[in-house]
Order: sequence, then structure tokens, then C-alpha cells
Amino acid sequence: MAQRFHHIIGRLGLSFNIPCVMEPTPFGHSDLRRYVREVFEWTGIPAADAELAADVLAYSDEHGIDSHGVARLDTYFDLIIGGKINKNPMIRVVREKASVATMDGDNGLGLIVGPRCNEIAMDKAGAYGSGWVSVCNTNHYGAAGYYPVQALARDLIGLSMTNTTKGVVPFNGREKMLGTNPIAIAFPASTEKPLIIDMASSTVAYGKVEIAERQGKSVPHGWCIDAHGHTTLDPIAMIQGGALLPLGSDEAGSGHKGYCIATVVDLLSAVLSGANWGPFAVPFAIKGAPKEAKQVGKGIGHFFGAWDIDGFQDPCIFKQSVDEWIRVMRSTPPLPGASEVLVPGEPEHRAYAIRLRDGIPLDPKVVDSLQRISKVSGVRMPAYH
Amino acid sequence: MAQRFHHIIGRLGLSFNIPCVMEPTPFGHSDLRRYVREVFEWTGIPAADAELAADVLAYSDEHGIDSHGVARLDTYFDLIIGGKINKNPMIRVVREKASVATMDGDNGLGLIVGPRCNEIAMDKAGAYGSGWVSVCNTNHYGAAGYYPVQALARDLIGLSMTNTTKGVVPFNGREKMLGTNPIAIAFPASTEKPLIIDMASSTVAYGKVEIAERQGKSVPHGWCIDAHGHTTLDPIAMIQGGALLPLGSDEAGSGHKGYCIATVVDLLSAVLSGANWGPFAVPFAIKGAPKEAKQVGKGIGHFFGAWDIDGFQDPCIFKQSVDEWIRVMRSTPPLPGASEVLVPGEPEHRAYAIRLRDGIPLDPKVVDSLQRISKVSGVRMPAYH
Repeated sequence: MAQRFHHIIGRLGLSFNIPCVMEPTPFGHSDLRRYVREVFEWTGIPAADAELAADVLAYSDEHGIDSHGVARLDTYFDLIIGGKINKNPMIRVVREKASVATMDGDNGLGLIVGPRCNEIAMDKAGAYGSGWVSVCNTNHYGAAGYYPVQALARDLIGLSMTNTTKGVVPFNGREKMLGTNPIAIAFPASTEKPLIIDMASSTVAYGKVEIAERQGKSVPHGWCIDAHGHTTLDPIAMIQGGALLPLGSDEAGSGHKGYCIATVVDLLSAVLSGANWGPFAVPFAIKGAPKEAKQVGKGIGHFFGAWDIDGFQDPCIFKQSVDEWIRVMRSTPPLPGASEVLVPGEPEHRAYAIRLRDGIPLDPKVVDSLQRISKVSGVRMPAYH
Repeated sequence: MAQRFHHIIGRLGLSFNIPCVMEPTPFGHSDLRRYVREVFEWTGIPAADAELAADVLAYSDEHGIDSHGVARLDTYFDLIIGGKINKNPMIRVVREKASVATMDGDNGLGLIVGPRCNEIAMDKAGAYGSGWVSVCNTNHYGAAGYYPVQALARDLIGLSMTNTTKGVVPFNGREKMLGTNPIAIAFPASTEKPLIIDMASSTVAYGKVEIAERQGKSVPHGWCIDAHGHTTLDPIAMIQGGALLPLGSDEAGSGHKGYCIATVVDLLSAVLSGANWGPFAVPFAIKGAPKEAKQVGKGIGHFFGAWDIDGFQDPCIFKQSVDEWIRVMRSTPPLPGASEVLVPGEPEHRAYAIRLRDGIPLDPKVVDSLQRISKVSGVRMPAYH
């Protein structure tokens, strides 16, 4: 099954959110979800919140976004066990005006604060035609794409973004000042699957550099610089004091545009909500975090939004138009060497179909981390597919 | 003066929206504005609308965005004279729900439909905390950056986007299916100048390829492909049946991300409003336009938005935080070979200061086009600075 999985994924020939796994052991998706929920419950998180957090992580694992699913459970676990996260946050509205609000996540798990605040944005869209919530005092919220996908069943166009720990240089700069600051937007379709956009504003996410390092490979030009600010193809040189480049990479590639996108995400998520912005964004993991870093706000920041399609157009007609748009784009003749033209979200939809059928392959290191958590908590390991 | 202008712009060493002019003849900014207004009035456009359209074009010329100012006046002029544009459009709301609306531009000049619809979005933001207007049946609206800048005086965060004539391939595709689909967002600051983001979702705009062709130079890898879908450094090969690449260019550079941004712009501007989307977007110029192209909607589409800062945070505190953000980003040590790190909008602010002092340099070909219009209309040529 793992063989078949690799074969199909390999055919996509794309760099959307393709999983990269070595010798995967496929787990059953529903028991993996059970395991995560029980682990969160064991830490003292209320049952409903634990289920919500498990749902966010499951979205990533089930859609092939391996970097944002259970691979990060041990970091969340350590943060909770280490007392760095508020297990019972009083998530509250700080300021509000009809379609917009600022919320304070009370240092809760981003996997819980995120869905709750996204819900408010969607409710506002139902009431006012659009809804927007900027959130401070929160933590890492999983894959950005999870949130706009929740909006689809309500015939809303969903949006989410978050600032993250610094790792990316501003255009022409040589020090990390911004996070990989992702942005995600989803549009519902009618008979086609929805369009889902979920992208970091750097050329690549840090995880891709780590993978090259583990495999002893070089990285393409334009991904990163070394500690002296020179372009490097050596992943180790990036990891040891270097930095990622914004989308577009350099002057020839219009690297200032990636910097602009990261700016938008940082301003709407963190400056607008009163969270730590730019280089002050709180690190995700405890390990390696400086003890007394300068703070300019509370936690990190998210930004959620939704537009009610019904306020603009008959939702049925809109969704049929999206279907047509998808088919027209797919009909584009491919570049020499490329097998097909996909639409945003298609790699995730394909991964989802395969993973629900064949199970979820996990990297051995991730399996080790789940076993460690299982021993500590007594929660039964997830079953194989 | 032209010499000094070149010297200062050259020092920026950036690829934001730097003007590229040859042997410029500087014109006085206010008389250039008078000239444009009188030309539009001469065509039969009402005085208030002519002034508005002149203001949109002046924004580009005064901020160094030479591709979108009076350089395009002859195209607008020909469209109006040729009866392709409605000089007295009844711009109307088609559908509405509190903070959102769809508007029909009645085939008016985009330079008039755009500001009117942007005004509605800003008014909605004042009333509901945010405002969003999707517009169909409109035409080319000038520089995307003009619109969010109008929001700043009201303490709003402004946004605009528009779809444009096809010129860009979807990721992995070899035929033009999307426009350069720009997006612009502006944030007010306190004592610093505002942050202004205005970027096409292709690696570069078509104008940059044309400039290389005129100068007999090659273009960098990643800008475009030839008619067979092969990467090319030859601008002529792109112009003769090739296409532009989305931001990120190829798989190594994450070209799927530029495709995703173009998708968002196309969906919100054109699919949502009922305009022509993707490859069906109406060409800007009459010249070279097919006589009976397939239509899937009305005209092209724009999308305007605004968030009321006051609904999220005390606007004074927000603007002070933006000041601090700007100073922190500017303090980043530059890459070896780069002189400084700028923030989005800074090249435009610098160009503005220089051009209001030294006049607006125009390419000789642009001056020729203004002289042609002057002869036809009898409107007096703009005075030199």
C-alpha cells in the first residue's frame, strides 16, 4: 500500500504540499484521530477542545501536509506539559465593530483558539456579509488551510493567515526578521472539489530544507542564504545561522513580492491584534527559545476572514462558475515535461482519497515521538491501517 | 534635473516599481494633470469624472509607476473615441448585504468605475467595520495601488485587485490563461509614510520584457517561456507567442504560489462579480483584440476592500506600531552588495518627492502620443517643469 501511495503521489510532479516520507508505516486515519484526542484530554484539555485540536491536526495528516499534523504533536505536548500553554483559555473579544473584531486567545493552544475565532469570523459573515477577526495572545494553529475549508459548507469564501517565528529575511536583508507567514483561502465549487490555497510567503518552508539536509542533497538556488548573507545551495549552511528567502527569492525573481506578502500577514495578524510581530514573534518550540526575548505584544497573531457569497451573487451560480473555471484551467496544455495542469487544492484532494483508503504513512521519527507520548500518558498507540 | 533624478533612483538598487526612462523630458506634474483632465473632458466625459480619471493616472506618474500613467492615455483615448467605452455609465449595485456588494460598472472607464466602487467599499467599512465590493462590466482601472491609498486618510486599511487580459500561464501550463492580476494593500502609519504594496502576481509585468526587447538585452531566467513552452531568456521569443510565468517561476521557485495568487484575484474580481475571468478577460487595447471572442461574463472585474482599524484597535496605537514595524525592518543589515533594506511603498514615496520637485520624465514615445492627442483634441500640451 505504501508502494502504491508513493507511486501515485510521484505522478503529480508538483511542489504544492506533497508529502515526503521515508519507509512509511500507514496508520488508520480514524484511530490516529482518536489517539490525538485522548492525548490532549490526558494533558487536561477539556474533551470538546481536545476533539477540536485533533480535528485540526487530522486535516493535515489526511491531506498530505505531513509537516503540520501529528509530526508536531510532541511539540504541542511538551508546551502543555511544560506549563507554557493555558489549557482552559478564556477566549474573549477585546474590541468589535459589526463585521470585525480583535480577540485575545488567553495563551491557549492555537489549535483551539484558531477554530473558535474562525467561528466568530464565519458567524459575522453570516450576519454582515463578511467577518474578520484578528487574534493576539495565541500560539501555533496548525495548517492555515484548515480554517478556510471550514467556511465552505456555509457557502462562504474563507481566509486565514498567521505570523510565525522568524526565519525569513526581508528583501535585500540578511537577517531573519519575518516568519514564513502563510496565507490560506478556499472557494467552494459545485460538482468539482473546492479550490484550496495554502502557501507560505517564503519560497519554501523550513521543512523542505531539513529534508534536503537529512537526504544529503543540495537545495535549488533561491531558497536560502548562509550566515554571511551569501546565496547557498547547502542546506546545512542555511540551518547553521542562515535564513530563508521570501517568495521570488532575489531581484531577478521579484523577491520583494514575497516580502510584501509576509508584510501583509504580519500586519493583519500581529500588529492589528497587538501580538508580537516581525522578529519578536514567539518561537513555536520550547527547545532553543531564548529565555528573555523582547516582547512587543502578546503571543503570536492570527487573522481569520470570510465573505458570504450570497451577498455578492447567487451561490449556486457562483459555484457552477468555479466548476467551469477549474475545468478551463485544467485544460491548459502542459509544459514540455509536465504531465498535467492542476488547480490549487488538487494535490491535497488526491492525497486525501489515497490516505483514507490506504492509511496515513508516518515517518519513523514521528512514530517514535508518538510512542514516547504513549508511554508518558498511557494513551494506546494508534492502530495500523 | 533629469540627471539628478536618474542618479537618485539608481541608488535604490531595487525592483519595486522603479521607472525606466530614456532621455526623459520632465513635465510639470500639475500641468500634466490639467492636460489629462482636459483630454478626458474633450472626449465627452463629465468634468467631475474627468478630474477623477486624471487623478488616477497622476498617481502613477507622480509615484514612478510609468507603465500605468499617461503612457496609457492614448489607449484610453482610442477606446473612448472608438465608442468602446460608456462615457456616462450608470454604475449600480447589483446585489448587496451589509458589508458586501456586487456592482455593475456599465462599461464605464475603469478610471471612473474604480474610484466610485472603491468609495462604496470605504463607506461600508465606516458603517460595518469592513467593506467589500466586487465589480463587473468595467475596464482597465490604472495602478492597483491608487485605490488602497485613498483609504488611508479615513484610518482604513485599503485593498484592491483586478483581473487583466491573459498573459500568464498557470503553473506547469504552456498557454496564457490568466492576467498579471495585481493586488494592492495599504496600511497607514503615524510619522512614517504609509506602507503601500502593489504587485502583479506574475514574476514581472509585461512592460519589463518590452523594455529588455527595446534595449536589445536578454531577460533573467524565470520570467517567461517561448511559444513552445520552453524557458527563454530572449524577450522577442516571449513577445512572439510566448507567455509570462507566475511569481516563483518554476517548481524550484514555487511557481505554484504565483498561480495561487492569480487565482484569488481572478475569483474575487471576476468570477464573484460575473465578469469575464481567466482567458476570457477582455483585452485592454483595441489593437490586436479578436473581433468575436468568447465571453463568460461582462467586461473585466475589480475587487475593492477596506477594514476599519478602529474596529480592531485604537487607530493611533496601530499607526505608532506600524511606525515601529517600519523602523525595525529598515534596521535589518543588508545583503552583501545591497545598500539598504526598504519597506513596501518606499520606492514610490522617494519617486514622489523627486518628481514633485524635478518634474515628471516621460519617454519620447509617450510624448509623441500626447502630441497626437493634442492635435486631435486641440488640448494644449502639458508644460515642461
